[in-house]
Amino acid sequence: MSEDWQLQSYLQERVQLVDSALDRYLPASALLPEALHQSMRYSVFAGGKRIRPILMLAACEAVGGDIKTALPAACAIEMIHSYSLIHDDLPAMDDDDFRRGSPTNHKVYGEATAILAGDGLLTEAFILLSDPEISKDVPADCSREVIHLLAKSAGSRGMVGGQVVDMEAEQQPIDLPTLEYIHTHKTGALIVAAVEIGALLGGATEQQRQSLCRYAEAAGLAFQIADDILDIVADQSQLGKDVGSDQERGKATYPALLGLSEARSRAHELRRMAFSSLADFSADDCRPLREIADYIVNRSC
Amino acid sequence: MSEDWQLQSYLQERVQLVDSALDRYLPASALLPEALHQSMRYSVFAGGKRIRPILMLAACEAVGGDIKTALPAACAIEMIHSYSLIHDDLPAMDDDDFRRGSPTNHKVYGEATAILAGDGLLTEAFILLSDPEISKDVPADCSREVIHLLAKSAGSRGMVGGQVVDMEAEQQPIDLPTLEYIHTHKTGALIVAAVEIGALLGGATEQQRQSLCRYAEAAGLAFQIADDILDIVADQSQLGKDVGSDQERGKATYPALLGLSEARSRAHELRRMAFSSLADFSADDCRPLREIADYIVNRSC
Repeated sequence: MSEDWQLQSYLQERVQLVDSALDRYLPASALLPEALHQSMRYSVFAGGKRIRPILMLAACEAVGGDIKTALPAACAIEMIHSYSLIHDDLPAMDDDDFRRGSPTNHKVYGEATAILAGDGLLTEAFILLSDPEISKDVPADCSREVIHLLAKSAGSRGMVGGQVVDMEAEQQPIDLPTLEYIHTHKTGALIVAAVEIGALLGGATEQQRQSLCRYAEAAGLAFQIADDILDIVADQSQLGKDVGSDQERGKATYPALLGLSEARSRAHELRRMAFSSLADFSADDCRPLREIADYIVNRSC
Repeated sequence: MSEDWQLQSYLQERVQLVDSALDRYLPASALLPEALHQSMRYSVFAGGKRIRPILMLAACEAVGGDIKTALPAACAIEMIHSYSLIHDDLPAMDDDDFRRGSPTNHKVYGEATAILAGDGLLTEAFILLSDPEISKDVPADCSREVIHLLAKSAGSRGMVGGQVVDMEAEQQPIDLPTLEYIHTHKTGALIVAAVEIGALLGGATEQQRQSLCRYAEAAGLAFQIADDILDIVADQSQLGKDVGSDQERGKATYPALLGLSEARSRAHELRRMAFSSLADFSADDCRPLREIADYIVNRSC
């Protein structure tokens, strides 16, 4: 990796790689039932930053793996992330009309199709991960472990559990442990799974895998704190949604519980923790992971 | 198998076996978040007949397998079936207040938790199928194939696709091919997967597997036609829902398209096809599958 390595061009290249693989792996929009497959694609290609797939590929690379091995799993985790956004936006949940500046799935396709598109994307992730042709270079026991890690992180003791506690917490005062529960489950679990799966598919040693999980826990929480801060300080064009919408909705956030300055210092502390988890990797091997952690915190602090 | 073999006691014993395994495999209701896990269990233990798990175990047995090997997958398919019912009943979908005589999930736990309980159950199926401890007697490549079969049957080209076409077909005249599409996808796909996975886990030969898939296609469609007929002719206590509710909702059904008598003769024809698919099995080995097909058709015709 040369000295003039640039995070932005790296991210851009990876987004393209992931997008073109998603395009290959998702059922064609012309496939029956058309509205369903269009709706699934609408949300997957709605301008996501592909943070989870990019982290997965970066973790795979950091341990010397070939990112091609991790590309299907990277797409699967993005399908799961997309499904969770579709369901979160539903009228019965956050009731959001816009996401990233575009109408949410149910505003375009109706509520019933949106629910089923979410169901379809969640299921598609497991179709993809277990496809014997696509995963032919991955030993079957490794595939099974990838599926287990991803499913656990997405399920009722992971992401879905975090979403339930988040819903329950609306419009009532919550404490910091509850807020951390929400974030480590609702967003953190999938981010840790992304990095752990990348490490696993890249052939990590047990110690490398543990270090990368610690990195992901710290970076994941930093990402969420940064998001909370951005909701307060960003202008609308940065967010694609209304500024201060968390506040309006009475959502607990780190700045609301800790104050803006303490929230920022928490994010910086987490960045340091993420960096120190990478101590055993060479500068070149862990550069993307390091720069991503840096970027996550800097965009808001 | 003795001559005094009784279908009812066989089914009862299998329901108990599946129920007690589901109780072990589902996250405890006291586990955080409590409401979510209670909601997941509420629908799984709402009096389902366990048709899919029972067919899976019967297919496993028919090819000489040990049903213990198929029990986790049998529970996983029931979790997926339960999730599909929760989502189907939602206000944005069929808007049903009762199922099997009890309030539907969203009537008890609210819409948001019901959506997430469905998501949680779907995901839990894959957690279970990929659990290294629970599936330790199943070779990893076989696990991967089971996951692939189940996910495909449940996804946008299977059950979820059938549900979308079913929604689209409401309140507009549809033809027989569309009705068959709905049923082979919405209910048939999971029934075929149940039987095929049972065969696979039982160590079926390729020919046995194909015969059992043909059996399942015929029995699955017969089951749906029987359900349509029951909606018209049964009394409410048999159904746990309002008699004639399909008609009221303007749902296309076999009796509506073919007439009651032709629908009945179609169901009998499918039973014959199911029977003839079992021709290569000994009477003892395929007795449960045969009797189940018989029962499916007889309860309505």
